[in-house]
Amino acid sequence: MKEVKVLTKILKANDMIAAENRALLDSQGVCCINIMSSPGAGKTTLLEKTAQLLSGSISLGAVEGDVATSLDGERLSEAGIPTVQVNTGGGCHLDAGMIKNALQDLELDKTDLLFIENVGNLICPSSFDLGEHLRAVMLSVPEGHDKPLKYPGMFISCNILILSKIDLVDKCNFDVSVGRENARKVNPRLMIFELSSLEGKGMQEWIEFLRKLAKEKKAQKRLVG
Amino acid sequence: MKEVKVLTKILKANDMIAAENRALLDSQGVCCINIMSSPGAGKTTLLEKTAQLLSGSISLGAVEGDVATSLDGERLSEAGIPTVQVNTGGGCHLDAGMIKNALQDLELDKTDLLFIENVGNLICPSSFDLGEHLRAVMLSVPEGHDKPLKYPGMFISCNILILSKIDLVDKCNFDVSVGRENARKVNPRLMIFELSSLEGKGMQEWIEFLRKLAKEKKAQKRLVG
Repeated sequence: MKEVKVLTKILKANDMIAAENRALLDSQGVCCINIMSSPGAGKTTLLEKTAQLLSGSISLGAVEGDVATSLDGERLSEAGIPTVQVNTGGGCHLDAGMIKNALQDLELDKTDLLFIENVGNLICPSSFDLGEHLRAVMLSVPEGHDKPLKYPGMFISCNILILSKIDLVDKCNFDVSVGRENARKVNPRLMIFELSSLEGKGMQEWIEFLRKLAKEKKAQKRLVG
Repeated sequence: MKEVKVLTKILKANDMIAAENRALLDSQGVCCINIMSSPGAGKTTLLEKTAQLLSGSISLGAVEGDVATSLDGERLSEAGIPTVQVNTGGGCHLDAGMIKNALQDLELDKTDLLFIENVGNLICPSSFDLGEHLRAVMLSVPEGHDKPLKYPGMFISCNILILSKIDLVDKCNFDVSVGRENARKVNPRLMIFELSSLEGKGMQEWIEFLRKLAKEKKAQKRLVG
């Protein structure tokens, strides 16, 4: 019982900071998406391509979470996205306190969309509210269409499912309709995108979605502010 | 400071049970390999193919760890491997206590090689000794050759690296020599296998290695027993 109490306490403290983060983002009209996935599903590559396609129209920002190295943060910076790298030093997820610190180093008044690229892990990050507005889970085709059933907690916690590396569908035993069905079984409300960052398939729909999000957030800010 | 103490205490308790598990396995002449990886790297498929190739010569057993479902346990049973499914109910790793319970349901006196297929997670499982004799990390080609640098804890904790889905190397931005170099940078002692469970490449070397392991363990048992 003792461990459960401690964990509950930590999560409550996290949720309070997450609420502060969300209020700060709202006050600046920033829409924030927390992207989670297994290692190597293609989060960084999607953000690089997104930056390329939205260049000049919508201002992006990123918080890059990793166990170690600044490799991905450097890639995002090179892609033109103002990025704060957060290293967890072995930790398996980002928490709201890490995001609170990172937000201080971003120019939020100049940011439309903020991406949080979480640590590559299909389990632990789902338990931590970071103050984001939307949560996306990315599932890459080589991982297999059974993953929503095997890791339900992550898929239940998200609003968006991004099926990535869709160009590899013929090379892997991945049935897209079964993958969609498995995902909807654990979370019927999931909005689903199918895309290949490298070959471009499905990117237009993703980009249109982001444009709409940024526009809505700005309108909301005008109404509130 | 308090949380650190609690964690240390949990790990000490885990290590004591792990030592008991290892002693039990040794007394029965069973060699145990703990296989860890990101979700969908191909652990279950490798074990299915391994069972096929070792059929009739070496007796296998498996403990199948998953957050939810018995999908993988069923696959291993269908492949002819006596398997105990362990569901963590949301937990991100197996611990020694779970293995202790699972071992009671396996006929260890009839088992040469025992595989523990850990929960798909490239971070948390590396911290928990289960009583295994060898630890293998599987890295699948679609995940990218940077992963040893980004998730060093896992690669440092292992004896074996299995580069899987090597048939996809031309379709993904994966440089095998860079992948090997990155792995050896964080752990120079890693024994490395490159294989494709689906197309068969590299499987012979893996199978020979397992035959040798089982033989050595039996010789060891004769000496001790």
